[in-house]
Parts: sequence; structure tokens; C-alpha cells
Amino acid sequence: MDYQAWVEKKIAEIRLAVGDATALNALSGGVDSSVVTVLGHRALGERLKTVFIDNALMREGEPERVVSMFAQMEIPVDRIDSRKAFLDALAGLTDPEEKRCAITDTFYRTVFGDLVRSSGAKYLLHGTILTDIEETVAGIKRQHNILAQMGIDPREEYGYHILEPLADLRKDGVREVARVLGLPAALSERIPFPGPALATRIVGEVTTERLDTVRAATTIVEEELADSGAFQYMAVLLTDKATGIRDGRREFGEIIVVRCIHSVDAREATAVELPWDLLHRLCERITSIPGVNRCLYDLTPKPPATIEYV
Amino acid sequence: MDYQAWVEKKIAEIRLAVGDATALNALSGGVDSSVVTVLGHRALGERLKTVFIDNALMREGEPERVVSMFAQMEIPVDRIDSRKAFLDALAGLTDPEEKRCAITDTFYRTVFGDLVRSSGAKYLLHGTILTDIEETVAGIKRQHNILAQMGIDPREEYGYHILEPLADLRKDGVREVARVLGLPAALSERIPFPGPALATRIVGEVTTERLDTVRAATTIVEEELADSGAFQYMAVLLTDKATGIRDGRREFGEIIVVRCIHSVDAREATAVELPWDLLHRLCERITSIPGVNRCLYDLTPKPPATIEYV
Repeated sequence: MDYQAWVEKKIAEIRLAVGDATALNALSGGVDSSVVTVLGHRALGERLKTVFIDNALMREGEPERVVSMFAQMEIPVDRIDSRKAFLDALAGLTDPEEKRCAITDTFYRTVFGDLVRSSGAKYLLHGTILTDIEETVAGIKRQHNILAQMGIDPREEYGYHILEPLADLRKDGVREVARVLGLPAALSERIPFPGPALATRIVGEVTTERLDTVRAATTIVEEELADSGAFQYMAVLLTDKATGIRDGRREFGEIIVVRCIHSVDAREATAVELPWDLLHRLCERITSIPGVNRCLYDLTPKPPATIEYV
Repeated sequence: MDYQAWVEKKIAEIRLAVGDATALNALSGGVDSSVVTVLGHRALGERLKTVFIDNALMREGEPERVVSMFAQMEIPVDRIDSRKAFLDALAGLTDPEEKRCAITDTFYRTVFGDLVRSSGAKYLLHGTILTDIEETVAGIKRQHNILAQMGIDPREEYGYHILEPLADLRKDGVREVARVLGLPAALSERIPFPGPALATRIVGEVTTERLDTVRAATTIVEEELADSGAFQYMAVLLTDKATGIRDGRREFGEIIVVRCIHSVDAREATAVELPWDLLHRLCERITSIPGVNRCLYDLTPKPPATIEYV
């Protein structure tokens, strides 16, 4: 496939669709929304407004890093601090679906919905890829109707348009486009990170303390596995605790699972055969996080497991 | 150390202590209680009564296997079916300490206490080893007072004696004694298995269904790792569930942890660097157990983890 030609065609399509109007998109820092941001900016220039919503669920230093990388490409990004709204919505929830719903609802209805209405933009650019659509059809992902999620009824509030320029690509295609667009490798080669971010790396309730634990583990996993050549790697905090010994005394400690997989397009995956010295070092660093006394490595392919835990 | 001399000394000590009276011991099938059974039988012959208490928490085929191995050594063992008493005591319990207490209380107070009283034996042989005593002193294991646990007050019910012939040995010493005694390798080289058996391999509530799941995983782990040369290996069932895909549909499935360690005497341990083809095969077989869709490998040394989970 000629990705240079694909890029030019998509830029022309976005320009044609939006005309003289203005558009809005939310940048998460993942490769999908990064590519949409650059495509949209090339097509529309200042008529595309890009927001980065800080939901408290980000990795260490993530909001600053993303905004600064786009600033270097001369693409302005508005950082919106919505941390309290998300933490409040998540308090007390343990069911994975309820947690997902709380994050999605807070994102679309509370935060993004308000931004869309106050911006006056009627065109929304969204980073949906082909795998998202296939998994929704197969019942693996939930159906998404973005306007409905924002509480916008198209019959009452006329004229909103959703543009999904990546809907004919899988993850490997998106990475090719990122390279063609000249995105920095930190974005184009960035491992996939789900929209609900660290909340999907926590089984059970999402609290500030538990976010701190899984954020520390995520930093370690990303440092140690950056050169692994893996498609994706992550740290997951379980709710189960296990016995341990600290300073000669019995204790119950947190359990962190490390998952590191090979995959082409996230539809299937296999556990990476990491070197043992790396596995031991990961374990040693992770069990040095306060409260953590177990580190497990996930051996399971997809299927029967998914890549994520919740 | 001259283990042959040690054996002769212990047999003489037991004979001297018990005199013409009768003794009782409970055989679990682990190396400690197996060695005590053979020592006691050599010392006392038919004046030692050995019971095997089936607590519903045994591995696949365990009660039949143990009784039959001792029958081949011409040591008669009474199998006591106490499965219902244990399952009833465990129903609804999720706290590790409460589960341990329920099993210990059912064992000593309900089942073994009754057997002791009805047998008339005043001498009890017990497989305590030095590591048990050290860990109790260090606060890692709970204090055990066997008579108190049976509800026997030594001031009211006079004359009971507890003999602990292995109290000066660690696990490696017990194995040496087992070899000197000519125990079959299936007993002398048997990997350690805790008294509360599969209940210690279940985080959360112990039910018949959950016992079936962890029993199936234990059979697989023991088959695959029998030639690993490891000190101990086990399968643990968590309460957390994780997302998976089965027949194209999203599901929540059970998580099994495989733990396989090197150790000399159980005081310290390290994860065994198993070959990847073996890890993948373990994972494939374990995720074929109904309801299980994740298999994790525990990387953690002791300390900071313990060998067991609960």
C-alpha cells in the first residue's frame, strides 16, 4: 500500500468535509490520536483545535511529554485538567464495566461534551481504527456512538459530524502513516495505551494510592522493556494480596502482573520470551515499590486471554 | 552428619518414651509425617496407630496413593473420611487466617481430638521440623500448642505426651533420613505440600468447584514439573478474574499462578528459570481447564514473598 498517497487522500477528504468550518479533536498521546491530530492539522491548520484531557489516570509525566512533543511540531495542544472529575466518578467502583462506563461517561458527557459545545466546532475528528470496528461487531468491545455519549441528540442539535480518517487501517497501518507523517519515534513507535489509561491496569477500585502503585510499576516496566522489541508491555495491579516476609515478619502485599506481548495488530498475541536476567531485575525493582511483594509474568496468548485485564 | 546413627538414636528414644503404651500419629503423605510414621512403626510396631484424614483438600488420587504406598511397606494406615466436616467449616470464609484456623480447628479439635480420645493413646507423634519452630519464634508461623488445639487441657486430662522426633532437622535433613529409612522416592523426594493442602492454593473462598479447578491445575503442574529438579512447585487460584475471548466472545475467567522454586530448606527461595517451551505448554494445558483463561508465572524470591500465597 502507498501510504504517502493514502495521507494525501485523507488530508484532502478532511479539508473537503470540514470546508470553512472548525473542528475539534482529543489527543491522548497514543499513536492513533496522534496521527489524527497531525492529519487534521495539515488539513485544517488553526481551524483544528486539539485538546489533551488530563484524567488523573496517566503515566508518570505523560501530560507534559505529549503537549511538549506536539509543541515541537508547532501543533498547539490545550491541556485540560479534569483529574478531580474522573477520580470522583471512579470512587467506590470495582466492576470493570462500571469503571469503563464511569470513565467514558466522564470523558464524553462531562468533559469533552462541554468542550465541544463551548468551542462551537461541529466537526469532530476521532481515531477509530478498523480493529475497533471489528471488535465492536464481534461483541468484544462495546458499541460506541460518540454523539450519544456526549449527550448530544442529533435530531435536536443539528449539524455535528464525526470524521474517522483511520477507519480503514489496523495498528500496523497507523504506524506506517505515522512514519510517513514524520512523527517522532516516541509517538510512532509508542506502545499502545488504552484510553482509560492506568485505570485499565487496576483490577478493582481505582484510588489515588492504587494509581500511584501501578504508575510506579508502569514506569519500571516501560524503562526495562523499551528495547524488548515487544508490541506492548504493561504492569497490572490485582486486588488479591499474598503473604510475604519483610524484615522477618509476615505481611500481606500487593501483586503486580507484568504482561509483555508480541502482536502484529492486537487481534492475536503471544507472551514474549524475555531473558531471565531481565525478568529477575523487573521483579526486584517492582517488589521495591512500597506495599508490593509479588511480581508475576503473564504467559497467556490472546486468545484465550485478552491483552488487557479489565 | 551420620543419619543412620541419627535414625537408630531416634527409634530408641521413641521406644523408651512410649514404653508399653500405645501411640497415635496422623499421616498427611508429606515427607515429614511419612518419616515420622516409619520411625514410629520401627520403634513401636503395632502399638503405633497411624491415621490418614481425608479433608477434601487433597490432590487428585492422594488418599488412595498414600495408603497404598504404606501398605506396600506393611504399615497399616486408617483412612478417615472427614471431607464434609472441613468443607462445612470453610464455607463462606475468605480471610486467609480464618481459613487456616477453620482447617486447624477442624483437624485438631473435631477430627483428630476425637480420634485421640477414642483410641486411648496418650503418646502423639508429630512431624514438627526445625524450620517450623524457627518461623514460629520469628512470628512468621502461628504458635502451635497441639494439646490446646485438640481442646485437651493437660491439667484436667493428665498424661498426654507429644513426641517431635524431627525437631532438630530441616527439610534437607528429613529427606536424608527418608533415604536412609528406604522410603520410596515418591515419598522421600516428594515436593513439600502444606497441611491445609489445596486450601492454601486458593486465595478467597474454598468451595468444591474452586477445589476442582485448583486440583486440575495442580495435576498439570505436578506432571509437567516432575523432572524440573525444583524444590517445590504449585498452582494457585486467585479470586481476581480477567477478561478473555472464548469463541469470539468476551468473558471473565479465572487466573492460575504457577510457582516453581529452588530452595535448600524453604527459608529462602528463588524462581526456577524454566524453559519457555515448558512454560508455554503449562499455560496451554492450564487455560484448557474449564473457566480458566490466564496463567501467570511467579518470579518472586523469598523474601520478600513467602513460598505459599495464603
